[in-house]
Amino acid sequence: MKPLDVRHFAFAFLVGALPLATDAAGAADPLPSWNAGPAKQRIVAFVKAVTDKAGKDYVAPADRIAVFDNDGTLWSEQPVYFQLAFAIDRVKALAPSRPEWRETQPFKAALEGDVKTLAASGEKGLLELVMATHAGNTADEFAQIVRDWAKGATHPTAKRRYVELVYRPMRELLDYLRANGFKTYIVSGGGVEFLRALSWELYGIPPEQVIGSSVKTKYEVRDGRPVVVRLPEIDFIDDKAGKPVGIHKYIGRKPIAAFGNSDGDFEMLEYVTSGPGARLGAIVHHDDAAREFAYDRDSHVGRLARGLDEAGKRGWLVVSMKNDWKIVFAPAR
Amino acid sequence: MKPLDVRHFAFAFLVGALPLATDAAGAADPLPSWNAGPAKQRIVAFVKAVTDKAGKDYVAPADRIAVFDNDGTLWSEQPVYFQLAFAIDRVKALAPSRPEWRETQPFKAALEGDVKTLAASGEKGLLELVMATHAGNTADEFAQIVRDWAKGATHPTAKRRYVELVYRPMRELLDYLRANGFKTYIVSGGGVEFLRALSWELYGIPPEQVIGSSVKTKYEVRDGRPVVVRLPEIDFIDDKAGKPVGIHKYIGRKPIAAFGNSDGDFEMLEYVTSGPGARLGAIVHHDDAAREFAYDRDSHVGRLARGLDEAGKRGWLVVSMKNDWKIVFAPAR
Repeated sequence: MKPLDVRHFAFAFLVGALPLATDAAGAADPLPSWNAGPAKQRIVAFVKAVTDKAGKDYVAPADRIAVFDNDGTLWSEQPVYFQLAFAIDRVKALAPSRPEWRETQPFKAALEGDVKTLAASGEKGLLELVMATHAGNTADEFAQIVRDWAKGATHPTAKRRYVELVYRPMRELLDYLRANGFKTYIVSGGGVEFLRALSWELYGIPPEQVIGSSVKTKYEVRDGRPVVVRLPEIDFIDDKAGKPVGIHKYIGRKPIAAFGNSDGDFEMLEYVTSGPGARLGAIVHHDDAAREFAYDRDSHVGRLARGLDEAGKRGWLVVSMKNDWKIVFAPAR
Repeated sequence: MKPLDVRHFAFAFLVGALPLATDAAGAADPLPSWNAGPAKQRIVAFVKAVTDKAGKDYVAPADRIAVFDNDGTLWSEQPVYFQLAFAIDRVKALAPSRPEWRETQPFKAALEGDVKTLAASGEKGLLELVMATHAGNTADEFAQIVRDWAKGATHPTAKRRYVELVYRPMRELLDYLRANGFKTYIVSGGGVEFLRALSWELYGIPPEQVIGSSVKTKYEVRDGRPVVVRLPEIDFIDDKAGKPVGIHKYIGRKPIAAFGNSDGDFEMLEYVTSGPGARLGAIVHHDDAAREFAYDRDSHVGRLARGLDEAGKRGWLVVSMKNDWKIVFAPAR
């Protein structure tokens, strides 16, 4: 697979109402988009174990915290992180008043649609682009810009809105965990204010349960109105070893379940599954070229190598999109 | 009043069971430690307004967020911040292995019980002391040290444990707000990890709802065990204009109610009460020398001047400990 070759990026869409599956006893299946199989069994067994008051693995509701990576775990991340697509659109919108951007990277690449150069700059490059295009905005203004963008921005090959490219099985999993007393968090390398503007709508997750990379901000009274202003300076990078640090900073204790898809999630999975007590660590493996995309060891975006090598010995569940998911995306609206 | 003169620091204790007050209709009063009066009326009216679905001020449960300063608002802060007392005790415990501390400030002052010098160094000085005495600890080890200290550490004049010096009316207020769908947060200038170790027990607030000053941390695998380690470097000071920044960083949206007691809370109150919609800002005024302490404009700890000057024109409620609180502390255990 060539991750950055958008011609190979194909989605399959299911249209129409989905029948609600029921099990042998007639109870509604909380995870209807998951195929019966070891991945689904393991997730359900974990939830039953930690919610069984009589069992040895019982966890009190207040301690049932589950953390999810976002890009590639809850929604797609190819051909580039969606936040990078957003940043490129912002550069284009602001370019008329910034003629110097035509000669300065990474703005030049953004204006020329040179996605490969931009993607190679990684999450840090993306953050720099976002910072440069949004410094000076108040937090409220920035959130509104993100929401306005999300209303119309369309994926280059899927031909539907980015916000529709949420994985339906993961959305069901979030609901299922919450129905079982879990508090669900996003722990993303992406920008926290970008995600918080969308997390309610996409995942039913409130802003305070979104942890991500951030820029510094300052408080000021602007024209008589108290505001928080975004500064062009990185505050925190929530990736790799930054993820356990972010979890500790924001949550202050160790979650009992973690879901990721790339080596950027390795330390988070390692930290969360180190116990004590029952723990679940899982990796979404992008092995479905027909319905989404297939990539792992050699991808510029969402590289997964060490996670695949060590999942077995560490007891982490590897979820195959191809085999474990009956449905990938919700029907087009 | 001389705030640092412990001879003037007297508490009055009520002993025995408290009758549960009922109103004219026989319903249990959710705020029995508050005297009937304008402060209690205003708080109850605010809660009724934002929870009345038919009213113009209705706020959906997900947006009912209330923030509380800690020192001087939820528990006492005289003669010195309790975290400073903790840090002094840590210096004393560690001193045998650190002979150089006998000649180095602020350790020298801590070892000599020179509270005035320490208090004058402010919250930043306190943080430096805590950092120096705890760098290298893992987060879990630090939390255990705090809990062990809290079990026995006794206030110099109140002659009861520090953790018993929580204001009962404020504890009731937290419960009352939560019973009405509010999510309650602490937003403190104190160290976040110190507070998080105690917040469940003291206030029924989980660690993830405590915002405070922090040191940087790093993730590492130590002897095969993944841990978060505290570093001797300040990450964030959650005081004054830092409070709205901390609220934005951790919560990501504006609360609808804020409670403070000093000018360190001014910007938080200003930010929260700037609307839109119904808002409540309140200041606990320490005017009760008989039952706790009386201090405001001239205090080294918890100075309150601008807040008093502007509360009226800004519509902030000033709560008189002396007149509005029937009871200050829970009975001694």
